Amino acid sequence: MRALGSRTILYQQSVIKQLDISGNDFISIDLLNELGPMTAGELSKKTGLSTGTITALIDRLEKIGYARREKDPNDRRRVMIVPTYEEKAEIKTSYESLNLAMLDLADHYSYEQQMVINDFLTKAVALLDTELQQPQNKKT
Amino acid sequence: MRALGSRTILYQQSVIKQLDISGNDFISIDLLNELGPMTAGELSKKTGLSTGTITALIDRLEKIGYARREKDPNDRRRVMIVPTYEEKAEIKTSYESLNLAMLDLADHYSYEQQMVINDFLTKAVALLDTELQQPQNKKT
Repeated sequence: MRALGSRTILYQQSVIKQLDISGNDFISIDLLNELGPMTAGELSKKTGLSTGTITALIDRLEKIGYARREKDPNDRRRVMIVPTYEEKAEIKTSYESLNLAMLDLADHYSYEQQMVINDFLTKAVALLDTELQQPQNKKT
Repeated sequence: MRALGSRTILYQQSVIKQLDISGNDFISIDLLNELGPMTAGELSKKTGLSTGTITALIDRLEKIGYARREKDPNDRRRVMIVPTYEEKAEIKTSYESLNLAMLDLADHYSYEQQMVINDFLTKAVALLDTELQQPQNKKT
């Protein structure tokens, strides 16, 4: 897992360099894409960034077309940050080679084995989410 | 995998903040720890950082006691960078909670399932290493 972790970070660094955006901006885009629209407060909690930092970050993402602010249709007082990330051709291109290689790797396992791998990855994500909520790991 | 990737990066950010070191320094320490002693040139290739950046980085790591330069016993003209990372109590402490939680998660799988997960993780690391060697992903 640590070996995977260091490669993940090197890979992310190469993608953000290609896209010319900051690490925090990239992580926020990725989380929005994965979890769907959320409020600035929710994004602040997920990333550990202060609400002031998040406001400036959303401004930047809107400017470069990676996200937009929208009123929640169920509660017009709530403003949701909506990812428009996957619409961007440069993001698709950055990930395409890795995505194809990962799909090819997954294909080498039986359905049962894929279920085990998926279960492990899902639980590892939940476990890291829990660790990130520990006081010593919080940024703010 | 992308969900795991974003949590990995957030976790790494929290660890480097606790240790008060840079992301590149941390990645280098982690790679040295995983792959064992290597030359500055090899570390430069693995991280994608220039040899000049790596020289300054090793100086910093030596200063804070995370690595040291040693002559290769088999070839005295070669200088190896030797990790002394795991000897540091603050590193052990940073990872301890996550390590225990990961071991506990692994315990929930049968031996056969653990082999599948391990095989997948090993191949995913190799795959990312290959992707990182693609021209568009190289830093230098």
